[in-house]
Amino acid sequence: MAVLGTDGYIGWPMAMHLSRLGYDVVAVDNLARRGWDVEGGTYSLVPIPTMEQRVERWRELTGNTIIWHHLDLCDHKALEAFMAEFVPEAVVHLAEQRSAPFSMIDRDHAVRTQVNNIVGNLNLMFAIHEHAPDCHLVKLGTMGEYGCPNIDIEEGYLTIEHNGRTDTLPYPKVPHSFYHLSKVADSQNIHFGTRIWGMRATDLNQGVVYGNQTEDTMLHPDLMTRLDFDSIWGTALNRFCVQAAAGLPITVYGQGGQTRGYLDIRDTMACITLAIEHPADRGECRVFNQFTEQFSLNELADMVLRVRKARGWETTIDHVANPRVEAESHYYNAKHSALVDLGLEPHLLDESMLGSMIELVEQYVHQLDPVLLQQPSVNWRTGGNEVWDTYANQSQVEAATDSVDALVASQARPRERQLQQD
Amino acid sequence: MAVLGTDGYIGWPMAMHLSRLGYDVVAVDNLARRGWDVEGGTYSLVPIPTMEQRVERWRELTGNTIIWHHLDLCDHKALEAFMAEFVPEAVVHLAEQRSAPFSMIDRDHAVRTQVNNIVGNLNLMFAIHEHAPDCHLVKLGTMGEYGCPNIDIEEGYLTIEHNGRTDTLPYPKVPHSFYHLSKVADSQNIHFGTRIWGMRATDLNQGVVYGNQTEDTMLHPDLMTRLDFDSIWGTALNRFCVQAAAGLPITVYGQGGQTRGYLDIRDTMACITLAIEHPADRGECRVFNQFTEQFSLNELADMVLRVRKARGWETTIDHVANPRVEAESHYYNAKHSALVDLGLEPHLLDESMLGSMIELVEQYVHQLDPVLLQQPSVNWRTGGNEVWDTYANQSQVEAATDSVDALVASQARPRERQLQQD
Repeated sequence: MAVLGTDGYIGWPMAMHLSRLGYDVVAVDNLARRGWDVEGGTYSLVPIPTMEQRVERWRELTGNTIIWHHLDLCDHKALEAFMAEFVPEAVVHLAEQRSAPFSMIDRDHAVRTQVNNIVGNLNLMFAIHEHAPDCHLVKLGTMGEYGCPNIDIEEGYLTIEHNGRTDTLPYPKVPHSFYHLSKVADSQNIHFGTRIWGMRATDLNQGVVYGNQTEDTMLHPDLMTRLDFDSIWGTALNRFCVQAAAGLPITVYGQGGQTRGYLDIRDTMACITLAIEHPADRGECRVFNQFTEQFSLNELADMVLRVRKARGWETTIDHVANPRVEAESHYYNAKHSALVDLGLEPHLLDESMLGSMIELVEQYVHQLDPVLLQQPSVNWRTGGNEVWDTYANQSQVEAATDSVDALVASQARPRERQLQQD
Repeated sequence: MAVLGTDGYIGWPMAMHLSRLGYDVVAVDNLARRGWDVEGGTYSLVPIPTMEQRVERWRELTGNTIIWHHLDLCDHKALEAFMAEFVPEAVVHLAEQRSAPFSMIDRDHAVRTQVNNIVGNLNLMFAIHEHAPDCHLVKLGTMGEYGCPNIDIEEGYLTIEHNGRTDTLPYPKVPHSFYHLSKVADSQNIHFGTRIWGMRATDLNQGVVYGNQTEDTMLHPDLMTRLDFDSIWGTALNRFCVQAAAGLPITVYGQGGQTRGYLDIRDTMACITLAIEHPADRGECRVFNQFTEQFSLNELADMVLRVRKARGWETTIDHVANPRVEAESHYYNAKHSALVDLGLEPHLLDESMLGSMIELVEQYVHQLDPVLLQQPSVNWRTGGNEVWDTYANQSQVEAATDSVDALVASQARPRERQLQQD
């Protein structure tokens, strides 16, 4: 069993989860994400140790071995040697650049995203075809491939009646960013691979994942997974929780009617495991929509407000100019029954879950850089070169700094991270 | 007016056609296709001079200047400098790797095709956005993006009613090869560019083009465009004409019911010109299906037979094992009215046109390498490494050599090209 992209937010808990279930897990990553953090000045609020330290701690605490393999999918010779050596029964492919704003910064980031994702995935398909043709490719796609059509979103395919004839075809896609476009290209390539080679594939169109705590990450601080909160890597819900925990207004892009599918990270573990345990047939390209609930940004912001209020704090919501090009009020109804049919029992997003997310942020508030909290996001129309290099309104940054300082002081802990503006 | 990919089969007549109409044409190419010929041992049956010789001959005969600019779209700095210097009102983008079998040879060719096409197109989109935002992108796509659905193929978009709601979405695509997949990725990227940047775009999903003679190519042998007949670069119809002209059996892949759209190269000139003269609006991603007639392989083979018979020759048809993965008997009905509505007056494929194609081949029969005529095509399931490096059945090659020798002898002309097997 190979988990590609093990150093990422989902990859590390996924590797542990499969290892706990008794699979021999080989953890593969090129550590690109750590490089992008260095490049962009971002970081995980929860400190994460090296891959070597992680697998060693896991072995020490559970007796289970995860083999760590430093490998870039774009290095096809190394990938082919890897597949020929391990011949895995399944590969969980999470090894892609996964940020929409990152892909929208400029030409360079758009091209890097598409080349990295499309070439890595093609290399993997050929390596499977040549060295492990029975291997089940479990590939992480995204619900963002579909966009926001005015009709119900089905799971991968749509039966269309047109001029008196009928066919079942890949669901038409209107993706949201150059990143989402790379995933559409992957899906098309994989579908083709199943048709010409008889490859087994499950394409998981995942919603937005939240939460950091799985049975395994909670065993030891060294086993935690990353928590992103900046405007490039952090999801809207993460940003809301971190803003609220820091005593800052929650910033909602535009009207806030933007609706998407969401799921708990524990359900991601369960869904991918279900896909592995019920493999696609040879020649089958199975598509599951992997999320459990739909929310609009406004609904999420309101939930965070209520959770904060129950804890005795008032939070405000600011609607800011939307840097993205997207509908802010739209129909959205996406099907997601296939994984439930396989046995998924969802963890729903309730106030207790949100409360634990905010508590986790509070534990690490001494790591918070208020500049990153206030950095405006990449603009879909004009790119991100400028905003990426400059800071937001200085008075906002000062207010954020004061707020975070007060919170850190109330916990009587020193600030550990140097502010970027110093 | 920039024509990107001017050194190709369509690009060179297109540049002359627009120059004749009075446009200031800048001809751009990276000469990649000549390199791929050297790499694979293929060549144009009709000899083509260098780009410098072509534009000089054109100037000498017509007094019109085509500026020749050696440039690779994957070199984004050079491309940006070019767009900033010329700020064209329109770019005709033909500068892609365009062979399905080439893309199916192996991993390397699949990756090269997708990276070359997707990155070149992305670079062009960003260069337009930054340096010529009003420029009309006229992009050559392919009918092969759609595949062969069991419902009518519309022009780019499909209005879908589903569960009582309606939306008009990009037509679902099931492309035929890694090459066709690259064009689908381009279409998706361009559609996105029109949505976020207000780019003007016309995506021309072109059928199979035939014919070599336009008003301009017939002015002088130096102005001819290439004629491909091998199994990597030659279309089925070209191969049929060349096999027939050489007195060999016509080889049809599989049952021969494979149906596609076709058009005369003169109609390609007209369609692209119509797209330029009626530009897309800002923010519009217009898709035209650019072909005039549908034929199955069997229909084409039968037409070639009839044309040969009228000239006093018997030709036979061999159905050979299909190296591709495709339906050999299927529904196919693709709409193509948008360009007719703009004023296209099609040249249809009749026996006189086929006769002139076969006559052109006969003129250049002394250039024919029988080995290339007999080389089996790339296999979609197993790739092409092996067939690419070896020759087909030796007795077939010998029979082909004898047949071509006899034809050359009957014309009392020496064979100009050394056989590969010598």
